[in-house]
Amino acid sequence: MRIDSLLAVLQQHQVDFQFNGDASSDIVSVAPLDKAMAENLSFLNSHKFISSLMNTQAGLVLLTEQFAEECPQPCIIVKDPYYAYSLLAQVLYRQPLPFIGVAESATVSLTAKMAEDVCVEANSVLQDEVTVGQNTWIAPGCVIYPKVKIGSNCVIGANVVIHHDCQIGNNVYIEAGTVIGGDGFGWAPHQGKWSKIPQVGRVVIGNYVSIGNNCTIDRGAIEDTIIEDHCIIDNLVHIAHNVVIGEGSAIAGQTGFAGTTKLGKHNIVAGQVGFAGHLVTTDHCHFAAKAGVTHDIKESGAYSGFPTQETAKWQKQIVRQRTLDKLARQVKALQKQLNELQ
Amino acid sequence: MRIDSLLAVLQQHQVDFQFNGDASSDIVSVAPLDKAMAENLSFLNSHKFISSLMNTQAGLVLLTEQFAEECPQPCIIVKDPYYAYSLLAQVLYRQPLPFIGVAESATVSLTAKMAEDVCVEANSVLQDEVTVGQNTWIAPGCVIYPKVKIGSNCVIGANVVIHHDCQIGNNVYIEAGTVIGGDGFGWAPHQGKWSKIPQVGRVVIGNYVSIGNNCTIDRGAIEDTIIEDHCIIDNLVHIAHNVVIGEGSAIAGQTGFAGTTKLGKHNIVAGQVGFAGHLVTTDHCHFAAKAGVTHDIKESGAYSGFPTQETAKWQKQIVRQRTLDKLARQVKALQKQLNELQ
Amino acid sequence: MRIDSLLAVLQQHQVDFQFNGDASSDIVSVAPLDKAMAENLSFLNSHKFISSLMNTQAGLVLLTEQFAEECPQPCIIVKDPYYAYSLLAQVLYRQPLPFIGVAESATVSLTAKMAEDVCVEANSVLQDEVTVGQNTWIAPGCVIYPKVKIGSNCVIGANVVIHHDCQIGNNVYIEAGTVIGGDGFGWAPHQGKWSKIPQVGRVVIGNYVSIGNNCTIDRGAIEDTIIEDHCIIDNLVHIAHNVVIGEGSAIAGQTGFAGTTKLGKHNIVAGQVGFAGHLVTTDHCHFAAKAGVTHDIKESGAYSGFPTQETAKWQKQIVRQRTLDKLARQVKALQKQLNELQ
Repeated sequence: MRIDSLLAVLQQHQVDFQFNGDASSDIVSVAPLDKAMAENLSFLNSHKFISSLMNTQAGLVLLTEQFAEECPQPCIIVKDPYYAYSLLAQVLYRQPLPFIGVAESATVSLTAKMAEDVCVEANSVLQDEVTVGQNTWIAPGCVIYPKVKIGSNCVIGANVVIHHDCQIGNNVYIEAGTVIGGDGFGWAPHQGKWSKIPQVGRVVIGNYVSIGNNCTIDRGAIEDTIIEDHCIIDNLVHIAHNVVIGEGSAIAGQTGFAGTTKLGKHNIVAGQVGFAGHLVTTDHCHFAAKAGVTHDIKESGAYSGFPTQETAKWQKQIVRQRTLDKLARQVKALQKQLNELQ
Repeated sequence: MRIDSLLAVLQQHQVDFQFNGDASSDIVSVAPLDKAMAENLSFLNSHKFISSLMNTQAGLVLLTEQFAEECPQPCIIVKDPYYAYSLLAQVLYRQPLPFIGVAESATVSLTAKMAEDVCVEANSVLQDEVTVGQNTWIAPGCVIYPKVKIGSNCVIGANVVIHHDCQIGNNVYIEAGTVIGGDGFGWAPHQGKWSKIPQVGRVVIGNYVSIGNNCTIDRGAIEDTIIEDHCIIDNLVHIAHNVVIGEGSAIAGQTGFAGTTKLGKHNIVAGQVGFAGHLVTTDHCHFAAKAGVTHDIKESGAYSGFPTQETAKWQKQIVRQRTLDKLARQVKALQKQLNELQ
Repeated sequence: MRIDSLLAVLQQHQVDFQFNGDASSDIVSVAPLDKAMAENLSFLNSHKFISSLMNTQAGLVLLTEQFAEECPQPCIIVKDPYYAYSLLAQVLYRQPLPFIGVAESATVSLTAKMAEDVCVEANSVLQDEVTVGQNTWIAPGCVIYPKVKIGSNCVIGANVVIHHDCQIGNNVYIEAGTVIGGDGFGWAPHQGKWSKIPQVGRVVIGNYVSIGNNCTIDRGAIEDTIIEDHCIIDNLVHIAHNVVIGEGSAIAGQTGFAGTTKLGKHNIVAGQVGFAGHLVTTDHCHFAAKAGVTHDIKESGAYSGFPTQETAKWQKQIVRQRTLDKLARQVKALQKQLNELQ
């Protein structure tokens, strides 16, 4: 793709830029600064790689103004090179549907309603009254239960399972092996046994949501489990029944939410975090890795540890814990001094 | 379903109740108190929702005696409304098999033995000498290896894998994407490499067991991995080789058991808990979220933290840790006072 | 299999041994010492089972010299009975391919290149330009995307997904439900939304690697995610983009690696450990269960806790934390004594 076409992409997204070089060259793929050749797009995101920049042979580099003079190659100066890189790489690696239509080995109910330009790959199963929007790609081995609604421009990865009545918005990407709408873990204890609470809510997923591999998002018990627009979720994440994930939130790998917890908007949750049930967090919270959230979070900010506290406090506590041995010795010495004094 | 039929269900289960209202009305589904209409069953489980009760339009409410006077609608007074709700909702949402028989795209060995009224959905694979009991539903995409025995009234969810020789009891529900009987993680170290210990035991699952989505339950190394009757297991749980999960235990999401650990009966394990290998816990233990169990637990009770201790002690310790900074300042002040005294 | 054939296996692997008994007897399977009969191989690995040894009826026992006199049955004396057991059990339980060829319900691209003696089971999908080496077994329900290269003597478990361009070496075992080469979790934040960074690297897996069930190993963002030779990985492990797992390392269940972290060679990582991103660990490190690694590890050794520290220090700290209450009381008493003194 010619550089001037890439510049047009930035314009479409209202990205201000300045270009130094010959816009008629061709860029075909991306590469890191130190390995890039004339046909590669690269970017500088950090001071650390400045020497790679100075020696790069990349055909096109995205960077901020402060590094522009060090760049020996054609470059685009932008305020946020990483964001600009995402836009250009998306265009360079745009993936068309593998084909339009339904693979012969797929099993599609006569009552399923699909837009004309969908792709349903081998062995996928679409049961009664499933609907699929235009330009949506259903990879091989998926099982889509009755009355599921899937929007337009979605990618449903290989071997994904979506249970009955769940709703998936537009521009949603669900990666391989993920299960949407399994039963929530709701049981009534009775004389040492467990009586199942039928889980009759749905999972409702908004637009521009991305969900990683082998995740589990359970349906609601009575009301719905909800993932709002623009959320991104990593691999092996567990979201229990009736959880609400607020708009624009990001959740890293192996994190888990117990039932009915409501994550605020624009929360960022690192890996292996756990949320107890029935909690509410406000907007713009950040939870550090391995945090265990056991109470409502009412102020935006950074939280760490288990039970979770403000990150600054937690860090101080960690230092104190690590010097506990010293403190204990101090107390012992004090006792001795005091005894001598008496 | 008429209310008098629902009352008959409670009688069948020996639930004592008192009904206020007209038993000829029809109830078709469940809804929360504040959204329920005349055709809905609802329940009151907590003080918190008393105002919803007072305004409810539900056609039928389950509650305890103490709230009965506040209920403007027909109600059933029981000792445990949540348990009664589970029984009635199970009846209202009873799910028949999607069909009786074997889907055309399924691959079933000629030596597999199936009861007459099973359902094997699209693309499922049943290999040699698999047996399946009556009224069992095998969802699409399952892979059932040779000699697996599956009992009656089971649901095997979509894309579940059950490895050779494993045994599944009656009334077992395994949700989508779960792998039963994968190899245990057994390796002999040898000169910087690893030599595999063939895992030749089985997984043996009792009756009335429920296992969530994308779990992994490994087969035993020589003897079996065992899940006893009436256990319930949430999503993304890992159970290693030769583990025994005692009868009636409940295990929440993302918890893991290392090899050969034996969980007692009626243990309740919260989410993201880890058990070291070769441990034994006694009956009626409760492990809080994120606990790390590193030693045998010989007394019933509540345990928390890592390494695990009694919950009461752990809570006290957490408070102390959070006031460590204050303690350190106290010690510093004491030292100063003492120095001035000398 | 006759015992003399088993002895020949040890010789092939250069294992020194001494045999007491009749080498013409037949051994057909393994069993624990206390249950073994004449046709069983067993082994003694620990003092604890010495009484089982003294009463065993096993047809053949592997043990060290120190216990040989206590063994009433034919035995092989070796330095490392567990390693010797792994070699003999591998021979006793050698699993042939279920069949040679491609199942009728598999979907194999005309441009896929398979060695003559592979097995592709029911419903597996091999897309364009996939290559598969000799004696490799692809279980049912796998989805192998275009240009994936799989070596010889591999086992690809049921419902495994391998994304485009990934490379799998020889003698690799990937267990059921695992997803190789899903997209890394790379996103550029922009005005409260997330812009996807296309993940254009691969996953490259070496030789003699074993990966458990329902794991997720993401492809690199630009460069590759790499699993070096002789690594073993347990279930539900998450390995993010651009991670490198050094040769001979072992990783237990539910552990997770954030992006671009480089684990050294011969690291041993217990369960539920978390590694932050962009870290480097040196060779021969051991990380205890639930450790949270937040900084580079430059010296070989044992590490524990979160944030990780040397295990010996961590253990000391844990003891101090548990006696914090006592320490606080001591300080209070000191204050009182001092007040009285003043």
